[in-house]
Amino acid sequence: MLYEIHQQPAALERTLNGSLAVVERLRKRIERRRPRLVVLAARGTSDNAAQFGRYLLEITTGIPVSLAAPSIITLYGADVDLRDALVVAVSQSGESTDTNRVLERAKELGATTVGITNNAASTLARLAEYRFLVRAGAERSVAATKTYTGQVLLFYLLARALGAPIPVDDLKRLPAWTQSALQLEPEIAALAGRYRFMRHAVVVGRGLNYSNAYELALKLMETCYIVAERFSSADFLHGPIAIVESSFPIFSFAPPGPTWPPLRRLLETLAGLDAETLLVTDRGNRRSARFSKHAIVIPQNLAAKGPLPRDLYTPIPYIVPMQIFSACLASEKGLDPDKPRTLSKVTLTM
Amino acid sequence: MLYEIHQQPAALERTLNGSLAVVERLRKRIERRRPRLVVLAARGTSDNAAQFGRYLLEITTGIPVSLAAPSIITLYGADVDLRDALVVAVSQSGESTDTNRVLERAKELGATTVGITNNAASTLARLAEYRFLVRAGAERSVAATKTYTGQVLLFYLLARALGAPIPVDDLKRLPAWTQSALQLEPEIAALAGRYRFMRHAVVVGRGLNYSNAYELALKLMETCYIVAERFSSADFLHGPIAIVESSFPIFSFAPPGPTWPPLRRLLETLAGLDAETLLVTDRGNRRSARFSKHAIVIPQNLAAKGPLPRDLYTPIPYIVPMQIFSACLASEKGLDPDKPRTLSKVTLTM
Repeated sequence: MLYEIHQQPAALERTLNGSLAVVERLRKRIERRRPRLVVLAARGTSDNAAQFGRYLLEITTGIPVSLAAPSIITLYGADVDLRDALVVAVSQSGESTDTNRVLERAKELGATTVGITNNAASTLARLAEYRFLVRAGAERSVAATKTYTGQVLLFYLLARALGAPIPVDDLKRLPAWTQSALQLEPEIAALAGRYRFMRHAVVVGRGLNYSNAYELALKLMETCYIVAERFSSADFLHGPIAIVESSFPIFSFAPPGPTWPPLRRLLETLAGLDAETLLVTDRGNRRSARFSKHAIVIPQNLAAKGPLPRDLYTPIPYIVPMQIFSACLASEKGLDPDKPRTLSKVTLTM
Repeated sequence: MLYEIHQQPAALERTLNGSLAVVERLRKRIERRRPRLVVLAARGTSDNAAQFGRYLLEITTGIPVSLAAPSIITLYGADVDLRDALVVAVSQSGESTDTNRVLERAKELGATTVGITNNAASTLARLAEYRFLVRAGAERSVAATKTYTGQVLLFYLLARALGAPIPVDDLKRLPAWTQSALQLEPEIAALAGRYRFMRHAVVVGRGLNYSNAYELALKLMETCYIVAERFSSADFLHGPIAIVESSFPIFSFAPPGPTWPPLRRLLETLAGLDAETLLVTDRGNRRSARFSKHAIVIPQNLAAKGPLPRDLYTPIPYIVPMQIFSACLASEKGLDPDKPRTLSKVTLTM
């Protein structure tokens, strides 16, 4: 897992450079006919990347986005009206049976289809009209890391194809920012030791970093067997915050930009409850560290300039320290993060 | 909380009879112009009811549905293209600031708007073009019960307005089925005692009962301070199942119909892991009790007839035993389910 975490800067660069041609092809198609709706279908880590795509696409293109509930098609056999929709299936292996079924049905119903996958020879790559390939190389650890950040990167490119004003030159900085995050490993490993006996936790994110809350919770469940809940800071206040008592561990992502004021207020409430808070931020919002017991601060200022949301480029660099954290914590607990109990790499569901 | 749980049969009857006129008005409007998309906006328990609405509307009408991420409008200020969309805000109090803001913005952007609320004098009731009123009377317990089932009922009526072939005569049976579920209270109270020392749990649902997994988890968090995760049975297999060890408590909803075969396979896997399983079912799928350590069986056969999905009418009767379970478990733990720590009845978020 740690080995694959460290491959991310190179994998992101390959994925970016290798995808510009298909983005251009899709952009031309979209110029002729703009979809009225985007539907995203995925499971597991890929579904977390889709959650990012959901926020990114609505914020930067204004096209409504729906996260598909695959069972509506695969179990209930419903015919959802997908004419003029762009349907995007996301799967590391490209062999996830139910998301492939959704894409196939969408094609029959007249949708334009995109497949985001790490496997160019997969069923998904064959089914989709437009193939957005993660070029991360084979992923051997059951806990996905480099394919998650690769999928997130491809959503920026998909947003570009749909007309979002995201400069490719900005995206070219992501590998270097990811590299900076990797250099925090010694500090993160030391911090992970404090969590040796953690049994449950809550992860909070909002907006473009909501997906990271899902992804960190999933890594903690898969690799450390921690009962890890995930919430938006708004939903957390609507009931679940009742579970918080003194020393309850809460992880959060604190980027610069519009989600910071409500997160700050939540952190103030959590300080009053004496929760054990740890957040990830960057130099662009380093004051947030004052509102948390522990903080991991990426040394660059990642804030986007101009009319773009300031937190636009934070999700990839922000998840990296917490991938390292999960791998180190699994080691502390004497577990093998590459082969979690009960799981296999490709999960077939209907 | 228990008092309000027992008010549900009467509240459902009032809500159904009181809403037939507005359903008819909306149905006529929809006949003239069918929406290309339905967007649902809500927080907390109301968001769980919206999750039910999402499945119900796509399955029975074929119109694509999106669960809104309010922050996209309230924090990022994005202009999502909502022309020809039907936007539905759901809020017990009708004073949830961010969902009201979504409805207001949707109106400006040209959407048709529906408000589902328990408060006819609220801001939401004033803002929405079509008011679907839960007629449950004042809800004093912080943990919502009778307003959740009332909101779920109104989604059946909304589906009817959008053309779903759901007979009103079928819906008229829901109060009696809810009454049968209430009569299981002595058995449920005895069962709750076994869970006195539970600290964490997982709740699994699928399809039309996925929302009940969210709702039961929320009740366990709010009233019993249990770290309760919620998953679809498909997503649970994609990683989170690694947290399950011997005696791990897992709750599930096991209706007759299309979600039963995959749930049965999950229960078989969980039996192999020696998990402490408890499920809710009815006479229409009573064989499911054999796949779980404990089972609560509603004595009627709730399976829908004809071309409708067989699990169509199960969500309201199925949540009732688990509302009782949460209230009884809170008492066992010496907690006051009406006044959970940290929470208040109306939560204002931005």
